[in-house]
Amino acid sequence: MNFMTRQELFEQIKKKQSFLCVGLDTDIKKIPKHLLHLDDPVFEFNKQIIEATSPYAVSFKPNIAFYEAMGPKGWLSLQKTLEIIPEHCFSIADAKRGDIGNTSKLYARAFFDKEASGMSFDSITVAPYMGVDSVSPFLEFDNKWVILLALTSNGGSADFQQIQIGEEKLYEKVLKKSAEWGNADRLMYVVGATKAEALKEIRKIIPDHFLLVPGVGAQGGSLEEVAKNGMNSMCGLLVNSSRGIIYASDKEDFAEVAAQEARKLQSQMADLLSQYL
Amino acid sequence: MNFMTRQELFEQIKKKQSFLCVGLDTDIKKIPKHLLHLDDPVFEFNKQIIEATSPYAVSFKPNIAFYEAMGPKGWLSLQKTLEIIPEHCFSIADAKRGDIGNTSKLYARAFFDKEASGMSFDSITVAPYMGVDSVSPFLEFDNKWVILLALTSNGGSADFQQIQIGEEKLYEKVLKKSAEWGNADRLMYVVGATKAEALKEIRKIIPDHFLLVPGVGAQGGSLEEVAKNGMNSMCGLLVNSSRGIIYASDKEDFAEVAAQEARKLQSQMADLLSQYL
Repeated sequence: MNFMTRQELFEQIKKKQSFLCVGLDTDIKKIPKHLLHLDDPVFEFNKQIIEATSPYAVSFKPNIAFYEAMGPKGWLSLQKTLEIIPEHCFSIADAKRGDIGNTSKLYARAFFDKEASGMSFDSITVAPYMGVDSVSPFLEFDNKWVILLALTSNGGSADFQQIQIGEEKLYEKVLKKSAEWGNADRLMYVVGATKAEALKEIRKIIPDHFLLVPGVGAQGGSLEEVAKNGMNSMCGLLVNSSRGIIYASDKEDFAEVAAQEARKLQSQMADLLSQYL
Repeated sequence: MNFMTRQELFEQIKKKQSFLCVGLDTDIKKIPKHLLHLDDPVFEFNKQIIEATSPYAVSFKPNIAFYEAMGPKGWLSLQKTLEIIPEHCFSIADAKRGDIGNTSKLYARAFFDKEASGMSFDSITVAPYMGVDSVSPFLEFDNKWVILLALTSNGGSADFQQIQIGEEKLYEKVLKKSAEWGNADRLMYVVGATKAEALKEIRKIIPDHFLLVPGVGAQGGSLEEVAKNGMNSMCGLLVNSSRGIIYASDKEDFAEVAAQEARKLQSQMADLLSQYL
C-alpha cells in the first residue's frame, strides 16, 4: 500500500508550487443542474473538479457529511471519488471521528481498510475530546495519517477550545498532549485560517507538524497571514478551499472556473513559498 | 413525524420497568457463524436481537462505526435495522459527529432527514469540542434529540474532559455552557458508568436532563452506583449495554441468551426504580 510520507508531500508542494487542498463539500442541492440527469451526479461533479484542479492542488478532502447525507448511494459516490484522486495527491477523509478505542478501531477500518469498507484514504480528521485511546486506533494503522482538531475556524471554537487554563488555552493543551501520541511523520493538526494570529504561538509548540488550514475564502481567513505565521522549513501547511473553488460557477463551465480559482490560489501560494520557505 | 417526548420516554420506562438501552455494536467478524451465509447477516443478527430484547429495553443504539466499517452495504444494513426498531423504543444514532455549522447541517440531514438519507433516528450523539455552532444545526431539527458527550467512560477522558479549570473541570464547563443551547426536552448527555462517583456533582448542574450511560458490563461500571447517584424524578437515565448482551452467546441461541441478559438487567433496573424513583 502506498504511503505518502512527509518528505513526499513536501516534494509535491515544491513541484506544483502549491499547498492547496481542494475540499469536496459536494452537495447534490448545489451542483450544476445539467449534471442531475446523470446516474451519479455527485461523482461526475467531483470527477470534473478533480481533473480540472489537480494540476494546482496537492491534496483533496472529501467532507464526509455531504456523502453521508445521501445514504448508501452517497457512500458509493465517495468510494468512486477516492478511486480517481491521483496518487500524487494526499487524500483526506474529513470525518471528525473519535470514540472509545473499540469503536475508533472500526472508524479506522471504515476509512483506511479497503478490504473491509472499499476505501483507503491517506488520512482522517479526528476530534480530540475523548483523549488518547480514542485517537490511537487510527495511529496504529500503518502508513496512515491522523489530522487532529486543535483550533477550528468557526465562532464556536471560543466555547471550549479557547478556554484559558492557567497559562495556556485548551487547544494548546491538546497540541502538547497529543504531540506525545504521534510525531510529525504521522500526525497533523487542524488550525483555522480565521485564527492566523494564533499560528505564531502554535508553531512554538509544534514547529514541525503539518497543519490543515480551512477557512480561507468563504469563511474569511487570510492566506498571506497563514503563510507568514505558519509556514515551516517543509512548508508545513495544507490550505483548504472548498466552496470558493467548487461552487465558483453553477453553470456548465463549473470545472473550468474551479480550475481558474485553484490556479489563482496556487499562484499566490507560489509567491508565498518563495517569500517564506 | 413521530417525536418521542421526555414524558413519553418516562412512560415507557415506567411501563417496562426498565431504562435499558441495547447497543447494536454489530461486528460482522463477531456475529454467529451460522448467519454468515445470509444476504445481510448484520441485519439478520440485529433483527433477532431487537425482537428478543425489546420487551426489556426502552432504547436501541446502533453504533455507527460498525456499519460504516462495511462501506455502502453497512449503511443499507443500518437503514433496515432502524426500520424495525419498534416505535415505542427510543432510537439513538451513536455517531459522535460535530463540525462547523455548514457541515453539521449535513450530518443532521444524514441521521434525521429520511427523504435525503433514508434514515430518521430520534437522536444522535454529538461531540462538543467545536462549540455551539457545531451543535445547533442538530438542535434546529424539529422533534429530534441531541445527546452531547460530557464525561465518557474511557481512560482517555482524563486527558481533556477532566482537566481542572479553576473551580471546575472541563466536562462541567461543557455541561453548563451547553445547557444554554437546549433544555431537558431536547438535549441529553453522555456520562460513562465508570464515572458514577461524578454523577452527584453532575446532577447539581443538570438535575433534569436525561443521561445516556454507557460502560456497564464490558467496561466495568456499576448499575447500582449509577442509579443511586444519577436517577431523577423522571428516571433521567438510559443505561446502555452492548457487548454484554449481544455477544453473550455466539451460537444459534444468541438471541435467546441476549434476551436473558437483557431481562437480568431489566430486573435489576425494576428494583432500582422502586428504590430511587
